[in-house]
Amino acid sequence: MLSRTIITDPGDPRLDDVRDLNHSDTRPDLPGGKGLVVAEGPLVVTRLLESRFPVRTIVGFKNKLDSFFEALDPTLQTQLEGVAIYEVTRDTLAEVAGFDMHRGLLATADRAEEPTVAEVLDGAKTVVVLEGVGDHENIGSMFRNAAGMGVDAILFGNGCADPLYRRVVRVSMGHVLRLPFAHLEGTYTTWQRSLAELSEAGFHLVSLTPDPAAEHLEDALAGKDKVALLVGAEGPGLTEHAMRATDVRARIPMAPGTDSLNLATSAAIAFYERDRSQRHL
Amino acid sequence: MLSRTIITDPGDPRLDDVRDLNHSDTRPDLPGGKGLVVAEGPLVVTRLLESRFPVRTIVGFKNKLDSFFEALDPTLQTQLEGVAIYEVTRDTLAEVAGFDMHRGLLATADRAEEPTVAEVLDGAKTVVVLEGVGDHENIGSMFRNAAGMGVDAILFGNGCADPLYRRVVRVSMGHVLRLPFAHLEGTYTTWQRSLAELSEAGFHLVSLTPDPAAEHLEDALAGKDKVALLVGAEGPGLTEHAMRATDVRARIPMAPGTDSLNLATSAAIAFYERDRSQRHL
Repeated sequence: MLSRTIITDPGDPRLDDVRDLNHSDTRPDLPGGKGLVVAEGPLVVTRLLESRFPVRTIVGFKNKLDSFFEALDPTLQTQLEGVAIYEVTRDTLAEVAGFDMHRGLLATADRAEEPTVAEVLDGAKTVVVLEGVGDHENIGSMFRNAAGMGVDAILFGNGCADPLYRRVVRVSMGHVLRLPFAHLEGTYTTWQRSLAELSEAGFHLVSLTPDPAAEHLEDALAGKDKVALLVGAEGPGLTEHAMRATDVRARIPMAPGTDSLNLATSAAIAFYERDRSQRHL
Repeated sequence: MLSRTIITDPGDPRLDDVRDLNHSDTRPDLPGGKGLVVAEGPLVVTRLLESRFPVRTIVGFKNKLDSFFEALDPTLQTQLEGVAIYEVTRDTLAEVAGFDMHRGLLATADRAEEPTVAEVLDGAKTVVVLEGVGDHENIGSMFRNAAGMGVDAILFGNGCADPLYRRVVRVSMGHVLRLPFAHLEGTYTTWQRSLAELSEAGFHLVSLTPDPAAEHLEDALAGKDKVALLVGAEGPGLTEHAMRATDVRARIPMAPGTDSLNLATSAAIAFYERDRSQRHL
């Protein structure tokens, strides 16, 4: 039986990791001014324990902690060494977190150093490159879909939101904690150079665009060994600069007079086509 | 110049159509106890004017009404006959609607009688049949994706949420007002009979399932003239009863140890494959 501490005082500083969660995305007291990694619910907390991120605390209601530890894979027990486990009531947690956390179980971890771009590309066959994607929900869905459909890694270009933001972790169902990601260097020039390096590493660079003049996704992906799929923000899409640096512009056929698909949905279709294109090789 | 009435009193009964919008999904004063159709923002309000639903009121801030009517296609002017147009301030609208409506433009319409199942099937080649889909966001995304990818109609089986709920209209970007839909008869037995009728009408019935033993979507859809794609709720999926009534169970290939895709995303991939399967005929 793991040792737990019952905390009843919402002001207890040991609960600071989960304090004001709606306003904790920037934490000047932490390295880089960014918040901790926060996992909510048993599935995502389990994925946090399996991840490379060093877990700090697990906080939950009595019954939620009971069932979580009862169901936990014994091989993950060693991950719990040094982790503080706090039992709280629903009211106490609501006061600390700033809203009613009906799931009643969460965990925090320190951020870990990112792998390098070279490390995530090593052995990868399919990667996604995001440009200017600032929407947390879209990034979360992207990770969920990418993990589910055999994408090897996600690379972040200019102007993207923080992939370890709490909402991304939740929407991704914890896959952002598992699927490798790395940031391409941040300035425009270095980012362009990174794309060139992807090309040199043998990746066929494909821009996803609603442009009706682009090639059908099927043709753009047919017979390629390694593919890097570039995806831009919903609305503006990829910059012309980014698209020029790619080998081909690919579109999903759309009915006339309709709107382009949601970003994560478009990408999911491209992941499907990528998998399908390798099916009959 | 269209005649507008400026209303400053939030208690004015002429604004009742847009009162308490967060709690207006059931309106016992209206036929069937259901709320009005509510469109938000210029794009969706335009689609409401283009639709079969009889528009009652347009409500907006002065500048939003100005720009909306300035940009409105002249052919839609006749749709405005008999429509009440109310100009309100942001504060007044917030008090009436119950929250800050920053978009500043909305319209309401009466519900219109649904087309019959036979009417929506007439000439249709690709239809979706939903079972037990209670999530408004999923239904909204389904309409947006279906409209964008050439699906002809959506049919509602047992246990689905109201497609004309305000959130569905918004998430669908107004496509629920354009894409034909109809409800299959509601009891289990009649619903099964409806599926049999779809078969008799020449539709190849395809169940979408995460079951790894199902056929690859590519094989399930190859060479079919008319397809009805059955989609169940996220989590439970289609009932075994529904799946038994179909010709084939189809899956999207997933990486081991991952979660199934979001419902609307899975369906979008199936719409893509359906379109792709007809590309080389």
